[in-house]
Amino acid sequence: MPDSVRIGLLGRGTVGRAFAELLAERAGAVEAATGRRPEISGVLTRGDGDFDAILEGSDLIVELIGGTDPARDYALRALRAGRPVVTANKQLLAQHGDELFAVAREAGVQLRFEAAVAGVIPIVRTIQESFGVTEVAKVFGIVNGTTNFILSEMAATGAAYGNALARAQELGYAEADPTDDVNGADAAAKMAILARLAFHTPVTLSEVAYEGIETIQPDDLAYAKELGLSLKLLGVAERRDGGISVRVFPCFLYRGHPLSPVEGPFNAVMVEAPAITEVTMSGPGAGGVQTASAVLGDVVSILAGEAPVHETREELPVVADVTSSFYLHLEVADRPGVLAQIAKVLGDNEISVKSVVQRGIGDDARLVMVVHECLESRFAAALDEIAELDFLRSQPRSIRVIEEEFV
Amino acid sequence: MPDSVRIGLLGRGTVGRAFAELLAERAGAVEAATGRRPEISGVLTRGDGDFDAILEGSDLIVELIGGTDPARDYALRALRAGRPVVTANKQLLAQHGDELFAVAREAGVQLRFEAAVAGVIPIVRTIQESFGVTEVAKVFGIVNGTTNFILSEMAATGAAYGNALARAQELGYAEADPTDDVNGADAAAKMAILARLAFHTPVTLSEVAYEGIETIQPDDLAYAKELGLSLKLLGVAERRDGGISVRVFPCFLYRGHPLSPVEGPFNAVMVEAPAITEVTMSGPGAGGVQTASAVLGDVVSILAGEAPVHETREELPVVADVTSSFYLHLEVADRPGVLAQIAKVLGDNEISVKSVVQRGIGDDARLVMVVHECLESRFAAALDEIAELDFLRSQPRSIRVIEEEFV
Repeated sequence: MPDSVRIGLLGRGTVGRAFAELLAERAGAVEAATGRRPEISGVLTRGDGDFDAILEGSDLIVELIGGTDPARDYALRALRAGRPVVTANKQLLAQHGDELFAVAREAGVQLRFEAAVAGVIPIVRTIQESFGVTEVAKVFGIVNGTTNFILSEMAATGAAYGNALARAQELGYAEADPTDDVNGADAAAKMAILARLAFHTPVTLSEVAYEGIETIQPDDLAYAKELGLSLKLLGVAERRDGGISVRVFPCFLYRGHPLSPVEGPFNAVMVEAPAITEVTMSGPGAGGVQTASAVLGDVVSILAGEAPVHETREELPVVADVTSSFYLHLEVADRPGVLAQIAKVLGDNEISVKSVVQRGIGDDARLVMVVHECLESRFAAALDEIAELDFLRSQPRSIRVIEEEFV
Repeated sequence: MPDSVRIGLLGRGTVGRAFAELLAERAGAVEAATGRRPEISGVLTRGDGDFDAILEGSDLIVELIGGTDPARDYALRALRAGRPVVTANKQLLAQHGDELFAVAREAGVQLRFEAAVAGVIPIVRTIQESFGVTEVAKVFGIVNGTTNFILSEMAATGAAYGNALARAQELGYAEADPTDDVNGADAAAKMAILARLAFHTPVTLSEVAYEGIETIQPDDLAYAKELGLSLKLLGVAERRDGGISVRVFPCFLYRGHPLSPVEGPFNAVMVEAPAITEVTMSGPGAGGVQTASAVLGDVVSILAGEAPVHETREELPVVADVTSSFYLHLEVADRPGVLAQIAKVLGDNEISVKSVVQRGIGDDARLVMVVHECLESRFAAALDEIAELDFLRSQPRSIRVIEEEFV
């Protein structure tokens, strides 16, 4: 095997540029993991580059043009020429999957497409490899971040659909022409791909029934909230009546459903099967570098050939003293000055208090507090000093806190 | 390549038996996916079977004995003999990873262990393959279902630790001797493995600091709830100060943290990196068939060799008319008999009402209802009839509902 691998890159949009940057940044890691140093041997853009020359000079093709024409032609020619292909192109796979997979099989080369569905969430690999022989009953989820952002915004603010869409466009979560996202077509293409993989049966985009979110009214969301329901645009592929059903539709979920807390431009996919119960995976559904990461993961899998035997390539020391935030529970005497003395000990150790609650009176008085992140050794020292204070009625109790707040 | 593959199975406990059953059940699917029919060529149990004979007569070894002795010896001998090994044994990998990986590398055979961490959640594959060249910043999560059940129980019922543990034992979520689960040692072994994979650096169990949940007091949980915090036993492996920190400790999370809603005997793992933002994966952390599914996924990956080109093996029809539950929004005249007439139309179409709310008066009167699952064609027919009723002030609006409630 040659010690470098030449990658022909088709497309230089947001994802294409992000991929080229990420590849340059991680080239050393790729070489360490696969034994081969990747380099971009040619880039085809709308106005520049010759596909035949790029194909000739590459060992592997990364297709990030989007759309089906000329992407389909390029992918087919690459596969026929014996080049593995990595693509992020959902339309290509949803519309021409049968043809592409057949050609890849015939040529005996890999065709990988993790980035085509749910961005960086490794749902394609999971269904195809981890659950490749599992009798999957259902795969469903939120596979379009634009619509999930719009519905989250409508639910949170009471905004009308049009205003929430405008907000999504402002923040870069919706394109200038959002049609394919909001009418469900984008999600339908992704569900065609997931259904094919989960059920090992040919599914094309035309077989997926879809509805969008354009007609959702703010008062539907308001009533639903009262009923304990939240609204998502769901893609659902499931076994039904001896066949399968693959659809996309807006849908209410009861609180407690694993997909119910997924808000904003995130994606989440669940896989259900008797032998696995259910597995849920969530993460950002789009974004240049995130999509590029998924593409890079596919490239590495192709270069690594047969699946890895783990190999270390670093010698990182294990750090003993790290920073944490802490919850602190103190049973104290009910008398003036107690809080001041404790605050002084904490302050002397450079520990700052985030919140404090005083509870109970007399023999039941206690202080419950959360302190901001500090070196654990410093907190331990403060705790030792506090334990010596004469007004403490029992040993202090502490538990770590993750301060990071998610919204 | 021979058209059958002989699997030597070490161990016939809960997981071993579940694996043998699952393999028999899915043998056809394995053959369709890999071209090779799997068969169990020998089973080694504590009292029965000869390891050398089993090794001799097998192409691949599945190690489900647990513990390090004699599992370590068997795994090493199998690898040296050129047999790929699949194991669910976290202690084996956490304590003897360096040795095992070195021998596997030398022999040029695969060593797979998805089931060793977080059960059926494909976190090992994800970190090792999808994110194999990603600069992972942090991998953390709930990797012990027993303690998560106990903490969920304490938080929900106010039970003391001992009572919650007893309840977990009753339900089969805790073993008779729960020591390694409740003191954090089990989670520590899993985090040693995840840290090694995420950071490509040797990490052994002895380097992982761990604390358990045995001293958690119900009133800590009560105070925390007031502060908006929930308690989890977390495993955390992260880059810190040019090295890494790998630890297990009970920890409060703010509401809104993706791990905060993970309740009961479930596991969930998050991976953070600049290039992926964050990916969260959750599912059952244990269980015979679930663990066996993870083992089978590894076996299939080994048999499939280089990663798959998708191939269909079924011809499932796409079913058009399926069942759904619906939300229905009707703007109606404010007069007696309206609900009765609508209920009659629904009843005539064999649709039963789950909940109904009447809102507004006069020109603002409306009925909002949720109906139980029914054939969509039937619901559409009912909707057509309802749209004809003279007291309707506008077109009916409906949105699907997933009725399934999770707890």
